[in-house]
Amino acid sequence: MTRNAAIGIDYGTESCRAVVVDLASGSELGEAVHLYRSGVIDEVLPATGQALPPSWALQDPADYVEGLTAVVRGAVAASGLTADEVVGIGIDTTACTVIPTTADGVPLATTPHWRAEPHAYAKLWKHHAAQRHADRVNALARTHGGLFLNSYGGKISAEWLVPKALEIFEAAPDVFAAADRLIELEDWLVSQLVGHEVRGAHVAGYKANYRAEDAGYPSEQFLEELSPGFAAVLGKLGHDLVGPGARAGGLTEEWAQRLGLRPGTAVASGNMDAHVAMLACGVAGPGDMVLVMGTSVCNLVLSAEKQHVEGMSGVVKDGIIPGYWAYEAGQPGVGDTFGWYVRNFLPQRYAEAAEAAGVSGFDYLADRAAALRPGESGLVALDWFNGNRSVLVDAHLSGVLVGMTLATRPEHVYRALVEAAAFGQRTILEAFESSGVAVDRIVACGGLPGKSPLLMQVLADATGREIHLSASANTPALGAALHAGLAAGSAAGGYDSFAEAAAFGRISETAYTPDPEAGAVYDRLYRIYDRLSTDLGRRPEDVMYALRDIAADAARHQQFPLQEVGP
Amino acid sequence: MTRNAAIGIDYGTESCRAVVVDLASGSELGEAVHLYRSGVIDEVLPATGQALPPSWALQDPADYVEGLTAVVRGAVAASGLTADEVVGIGIDTTACTVIPTTADGVPLATTPHWRAEPHAYAKLWKHHAAQRHADRVNALARTHGGLFLNSYGGKISAEWLVPKALEIFEAAPDVFAAADRLIELEDWLVSQLVGHEVRGAHVAGYKANYRAEDAGYPSEQFLEELSPGFAAVLGKLGHDLVGPGARAGGLTEEWAQRLGLRPGTAVASGNMDAHVAMLACGVAGPGDMVLVMGTSVCNLVLSAEKQHVEGMSGVVKDGIIPGYWAYEAGQPGVGDTFGWYVRNFLPQRYAEAAEAAGVSGFDYLADRAAALRPGESGLVALDWFNGNRSVLVDAHLSGVLVGMTLATRPEHVYRALVEAAAFGQRTILEAFESSGVAVDRIVACGGLPGKSPLLMQVLADATGREIHLSASANTPALGAALHAGLAAGSAAGGYDSFAEAAAFGRISETAYTPDPEAGAVYDRLYRIYDRLSTDLGRRPEDVMYALRDIAADAARHQQFPLQEVGP
Repeated sequence: MTRNAAIGIDYGTESCRAVVVDLASGSELGEAVHLYRSGVIDEVLPATGQALPPSWALQDPADYVEGLTAVVRGAVAASGLTADEVVGIGIDTTACTVIPTTADGVPLATTPHWRAEPHAYAKLWKHHAAQRHADRVNALARTHGGLFLNSYGGKISAEWLVPKALEIFEAAPDVFAAADRLIELEDWLVSQLVGHEVRGAHVAGYKANYRAEDAGYPSEQFLEELSPGFAAVLGKLGHDLVGPGARAGGLTEEWAQRLGLRPGTAVASGNMDAHVAMLACGVAGPGDMVLVMGTSVCNLVLSAEKQHVEGMSGVVKDGIIPGYWAYEAGQPGVGDTFGWYVRNFLPQRYAEAAEAAGVSGFDYLADRAAALRPGESGLVALDWFNGNRSVLVDAHLSGVLVGMTLATRPEHVYRALVEAAAFGQRTILEAFESSGVAVDRIVACGGLPGKSPLLMQVLADATGREIHLSASANTPALGAALHAGLAAGSAAGGYDSFAEAAAFGRISETAYTPDPEAGAVYDRLYRIYDRLSTDLGRRPEDVMYALRDIAADAARHQQFPLQEVGP
Repeated sequence: MTRNAAIGIDYGTESCRAVVVDLASGSELGEAVHLYRSGVIDEVLPATGQALPPSWALQDPADYVEGLTAVVRGAVAASGLTADEVVGIGIDTTACTVIPTTADGVPLATTPHWRAEPHAYAKLWKHHAAQRHADRVNALARTHGGLFLNSYGGKISAEWLVPKALEIFEAAPDVFAAADRLIELEDWLVSQLVGHEVRGAHVAGYKANYRAEDAGYPSEQFLEELSPGFAAVLGKLGHDLVGPGARAGGLTEEWAQRLGLRPGTAVASGNMDAHVAMLACGVAGPGDMVLVMGTSVCNLVLSAEKQHVEGMSGVVKDGIIPGYWAYEAGQPGVGDTFGWYVRNFLPQRYAEAAEAAGVSGFDYLADRAAALRPGESGLVALDWFNGNRSVLVDAHLSGVLVGMTLATRPEHVYRALVEAAAFGQRTILEAFESSGVAVDRIVACGGLPGKSPLLMQVLADATGREIHLSASANTPALGAALHAGLAAGSAAGGYDSFAEAAAFGRISETAYTPDPEAGAVYDRLYRIYDRLSTDLGRRPEDVMYALRDIAADAARHQQFPLQEVGP
């Protein structure tokens, strides 16, 4: 029997993965994973050994290409399908990851001339060194009555395109001049596959402050006022944009050969990893909140109306599913924080006990933490270890732990980190609901729910909500494949509407259900969390900003050549 | 050549030690150390296996006696002296450690009838379960205009005698009834040696709210109002009190035999470990601050005048050196906190690197922390891991760490803990100076300065002061021996005045000197520390008290039989 299948390729922070999906059933037929050769470049630039300052996070674009071939060939081989049976390709990536390239799409970092220049590399979503640039964008927009900020919860993030581009413009003007294009990772990959540049309106909408319903990108005048000469950035962006699920083009001869697929295979417009997950969870309309949970957590909600919700990273018309306003919120370090804690603070005796029990240190600690009662730790944490993206939207904020005594043990701290992640989610949920955006059901996906059942139960308890789970282990890749099905269209065995595609997304039958007794304790703890959030997060100058400034001054003494130069 | 020597015996938290000191030169001739068999009893009562609630810390009085014989015989043997050459015995201990005994001084906990009863044991200084009782004492005293509180910085501590006695009275009335005497450890040991009860006015002054210059102990009326029937405690305390350095009596025949010394050997009045250190540092008058640094830090200053200094744990006339008001302040967890952190949070890879380098995990981490620049960690901590004794005086306060990011490493946290300890000291120093009590010179002693040169340098940098060091490795034991010399008097080869005895105390020739560049960074960090101290410590209800309450409620669910019963 011949099938009609699509490949979904998901680019994560450390690795990429491809899944081959049968479009007629939604079942996954084969998959493959590839770890990037250079991983996240956040300490030393491999090409030169140069130390990078704190807050930097780069990637080598050559790793993306190497991974693409590896996972497509691997997944197709695993599926047992022939090239003729693959009718579409969909790609999703982390965002906003920005690559400076030549006019024909060659990343500067892959050329000998720029190999030693950190600013020429892909700036990964979690590159946070452009916070001061983001602060200036926000401050200037406010002096003009807000402009585009109202679509982004009143603030834009250091992770987005305009701050990252401004950082390059001011700190490495030669890179800026040489970069004919500044392009986001998902758009760049798709453009490579189809042989010409194709960018997504939804990508630009979320990460480059592009508003299709209004003036498009920030104005030339605004950009010049931000930094004279910076309006040149407009010439490096895309202006002929397509929507989510659109057919960007057909696979080129060259790429067909590299990937072992048919030339002309439909390629969907690039998209963000979190956003394609929505369709994979079977969601194509309002009332559901999808949590994409991994190193970070991304919250997605659809609404027929546009509301102002504090700190939402983006409200974009037709941004995920055509016909709806799509809200994006999130927490920038959740799985990341747990991993950081276990890597850096798990004591030897716990590591040895874990080894003796044949479990990972992470699981050993999580089990001990799960054995504690809510509130027993005596601790409360603020989950801002990688900054705050909702509702305060401030990468300068940092983690806090209050209540430690000499009786505090590693599992107490770990449990407090888990509880803080749940309280951060509760903050987001309350921001939506108090703004009139209904959340009737919560569906979680991503790698974290399987790794941390404790987090999922605490999340249910602390929010008082059932937490449903995606039934796929590869939710974003499945979502990218469903988008590929839309790009292929029904004539090729794909889909003609998002509702049709969503029918092949799926959630599991069991859910985490809230325990009211635990919930009552979490209500008390959440009041403390909320109080500390207000004190430390809404007036951050005296404590968290001051600490960052002192640390930056100390780092300057070490003469990092890349140290922040903004005003 | 025959010498005139004295034995100083120092009872610490985990062990006791004796030093034999030549009274004519101050030189130390022999020493011995003994670890208590049951150590600190803070998790399970060994006699029954019964779990103890959080905040408890007991000791077995039998351990004190076993240690006494061991260290006296050991130190004398090590000195090579004969019994005839030992003319005096001095004892100092942790404070306030309270023992319920029969009328003839037998500790209840050492009798079969009471062996299973936790309230019958010695309540160690850091037993913090009587905080609510202390709160009630403070609240009631305030309704009567303060009463004795003005001598104690406006608050008394949960560590002191009255709260601990009230805890026994209310939680274990049978123990209270059976305890003819409630006696502090140093007084009890001295009473044993001389064969009748002798208590120190200075001990009662600091730890039992006894004011020689005023009404003595809190009044019968006050105690009855605190809890009806509680005035009976007055009958269990000492009323015929002697001063520091006084001869409490001569060694009994029985004890002379057990210790291998002459009957009638002069025994000095019992004293507190920190207080005898002052004499051992050569200090017998105003202008010097002595820091006794170990698991906790005790600050001591003499003054000819009485001033109100916020949060001082005690201001006692003739309390340390006759003729002066002696101020006591301090931090209840410093070395303790460092040890807790290394034990619980040193990751395996650091432990392994330490082992490979042949150093302790503590030293390995301290070296990494010492390599950081001031402020580089991006962190600030509040040093309240064992509560706060100055200037806020509140055992319910707890530790805080602010500024963590995913780049935070174990040495960053450790350095923040060290800096927080120094900031706590700066707070105390500023409280003295702003109250008109001059501090011209700082002298540190105890075990911590040798273990943590980093702490000493940060202390110099953060306070802008030179930090001098005691030249003895056994400062309290040396001080106790000098007090024994005072008890023996010049006729027996000892001393007739404190000034004469102080001449045999000594400080080392080198000192830690402040680095102004580091000091400028610490000025900035201290502002953050001070801001957080004010926000979290002066209005503790919403955060730290709330956390303690939630944790106590969670513990109650586990049905600890000893759970707090006070209102």
